[in-house]
Amino acid sequence: MSPRSSFAEAARTRERIVRAAIAEASRIGLDSLTIGSLADRLSMSKAGVIGPFGSRENLQQAALEQASHIFRTAVLTPLADLPPGALRLSRLIDAWIAYLADCPFPGGCFVTSTSTEFDGRPGPIRDHLRATVFSWRTLLTTEITAAQAESPAPHRPADEIATTLIGISMSINQEIQLLNDDSAPQRGRSAMRHAAGLP
Amino acid sequence: MSPRSSFAEAARTRERIVRAAIAEASRIGLDSLTIGSLADRLSMSKAGVIGPFGSRENLQQAALEQASHIFRTAVLTPLADLPPGALRLSRLIDAWIAYLADCPFPGGCFVTSTSTEFDGRPGPIRDHLRATVFSWRTLLTTEITAAQAESPAPHRPADEIATTLIGISMSINQEIQLLNDDSAPQRGRSAMRHAAGLP
Repeated sequence: MSPRSSFAEAARTRERIVRAAIAEASRIGLDSLTIGSLADRLSMSKAGVIGPFGSRENLQQAALEQASHIFRTAVLTPLADLPPGALRLSRLIDAWIAYLADCPFPGGCFVTSTSTEFDGRPGPIRDHLRATVFSWRTLLTTEITAAQAESPAPHRPADEIATTLIGISMSINQEIQLLNDDSAPQRGRSAMRHAAGLP
Repeated sequence: MSPRSSFAEAARTRERIVRAAIAEASRIGLDSLTIGSLADRLSMSKAGVIGPFGSRENLQQAALEQASHIFRTAVLTPLADLPPGALRLSRLIDAWIAYLADCPFPGGCFVTSTSTEFDGRPGPIRDHLRATVFSWRTLLTTEITAAQAESPAPHRPADEIATTLIGISMSINQEIQLLNDDSAPQRGRSAMRHAAGLP
């Protein structure tokens, strides 16, 4: 095997392990993830699973980073060609609801479940989650402010609307994952559009 | 010891174990709860901890039931003297925000964190959580409907408002527990009142 193809092979193995870790952690929690069960799932040795990361905690961090990347790609890619404003916020809401309705993670929104799991446990994973949630809140507030600038009507504060939209996403995630309620995505979309002041 | 005082003593021991289980599970998750760590925390034997419940799963169920009872007592007791309507819904929102701002559980809202932990794991605990969440949603929808009946203005659907209020409670729970944001309760209260159509 040439050095180049062996490098590509290592990257593919790493990605395979991260995807399996996300699937498993989404179901049982990031902290309950064990190298042994991942090794079984992937038909690999424990040393082979941990090797590319060096430690279980680094693997947990890699799973969190990849899950967050998958979310952002799903929700932000459809907006790429649109300038900030109401149409772009509307498109963002549609993509967010579609992501929740057909979630790529078997246990639902990965950051939501990991954040309730780790919010009381100081350490690097909690710090990573704080940064991820804070950055999404900031992005959302910026998009809401740009949409509001298009209309002279009085507005609710943009950070209050961000709190409401993030909340609706968590609420319908629960309705979909725990209550198996098929009407949740449509209700969530109406609730988000109303909260955001969209027609 | 008379039979009566020994019965009371057993009830007190059971309650002490349940309270410790809630505190521990709120921090590390209901599934990560171990009888060993509870025994250490309470300076009891493992047999003494498990004895009143018969199994770890029964102890988990008892913790869930007690946490749900604490929540309902905190949020519904202040409404006892009020007839259904806008004033009662307003009082409910105030009590809900006060509960989240000064949560009796160290890791924040217990049902929210346990529900993201167990939503992908079929079994009696998930069934218990489904029933708890469904019953709270139903109660809330009834209160919203009663408040809307007082005003002739056009209303959003009551179940959509219930989704939004539950969402805002989850969102500010995250802002308080993960982001340590002191402005979250005030923002959550404004967001809930606005979503509920209260002045």
